[in-house]
Amino acid sequence: MEPDGFNLDDAMTILERTPAALGALLAGLPEKWVRATEGDGNWSPYDVIGHLIHGERTDWIPRARHIMAGDSRPFEPFDRTAQFTDSQGKSLGELLVTFAELRQENLVTLLGMNVTNEDLDRRGLHPELGEVTLGQLLATWVVHDLDHVGQIARTMAKVYSGATGPWSAYLSILRDRQQ
Amino acid sequence: MEPDGFNLDDAMTILERTPAALGALLAGLPEKWVRATEGDGNWSPYDVIGHLIHGERTDWIPRARHIMAGDSRPFEPFDRTAQFTDSQGKSLGELLVTFAELRQENLVTLLGMNVTNEDLDRRGLHPELGEVTLGQLLATWVVHDLDHVGQIARTMAKVYSGATGPWSAYLSILRDRQQ
Repeated sequence: MEPDGFNLDDAMTILERTPAALGALLAGLPEKWVRATEGDGNWSPYDVIGHLIHGERTDWIPRARHIMAGDSRPFEPFDRTAQFTDSQGKSLGELLVTFAELRQENLVTLLGMNVTNEDLDRRGLHPELGEVTLGQLLATWVVHDLDHVGQIARTMAKVYSGATGPWSAYLSILRDRQQ
Repeated sequence: MEPDGFNLDDAMTILERTPAALGALLAGLPEKWVRATEGDGNWSPYDVIGHLIHGERTDWIPRARHIMAGDSRPFEPFDRTAQFTDSQGKSLGELLVTFAELRQENLVTLLGMNVTNEDLDRRGLHPELGEVTLGQLLATWVVHDLDHVGQIARTMAKVYSGATGPWSAYLSILRDRQQ
């Protein structure tokens, strides 16, 4: 069974593309763009890459293993602000390389887990959301990547909100998640 | 002067990255993702690449030349649905190559126009928006790219809206531009 249209091959096809897409978008950009945010408390592209790295280390594969092992305890909570200490002193280029390496390793690990369609229905316990399945975890990994690709595009676009003049009326991304 | 923070070098740095970023994100994806939309009347990633191609051909550089030539007539209106005929019979891979080639040519053309900071204040007449500047046109080119990168990420994410289960509560991109 492939619940709600989830397909493991498709998911991996998208997951393997994210580091190259973000590298192409961000590598070598001036700091003004790399460090831009949508306002206080929002994350810059630099912060987002650090967050994606932390997810590769502590979230997706550890939780997939937790479910496959049949562990009935809740997952370790995910630290959404780890990047603010972990990324310190690192360049965006270093972070992009680290993210690409970890993602590649994690996809090899996932492949080695030989997840079947039946496994996608296996359950785990999320500390806040309650019961979740392996399929939902892996679909979330994909959507989480795309959510942050969208966030980076939106954050960069807003650097030029004022510069577009009257055209801002046509550029709906400038009004998404308006503060 | 660099009105509202616009900087031509920065703009070109971002514009030159878009084809590679979209190629990395989309090339080789299954049709389910390439042809997904957010609902009737919305565009798929495939449609968006066709739209970006039409912009390279008829919008940004023609309008920049129009302004630099001091032409006081309004710009030619832009056809927002041209891709539905122009892209027919073409694969996504072909469209991505065409977009990359046209973008590269257009950036060479822009460089050859030797636009100065003073030129950024030159005026043109938009058929709907009225008076606009060259700087605003070029800033809009950048934000327009990023708007469509964000749209593609959002459209792809929504393919797995249901598949993420309870996690959808954390994935705010699934609620952006909700129908």
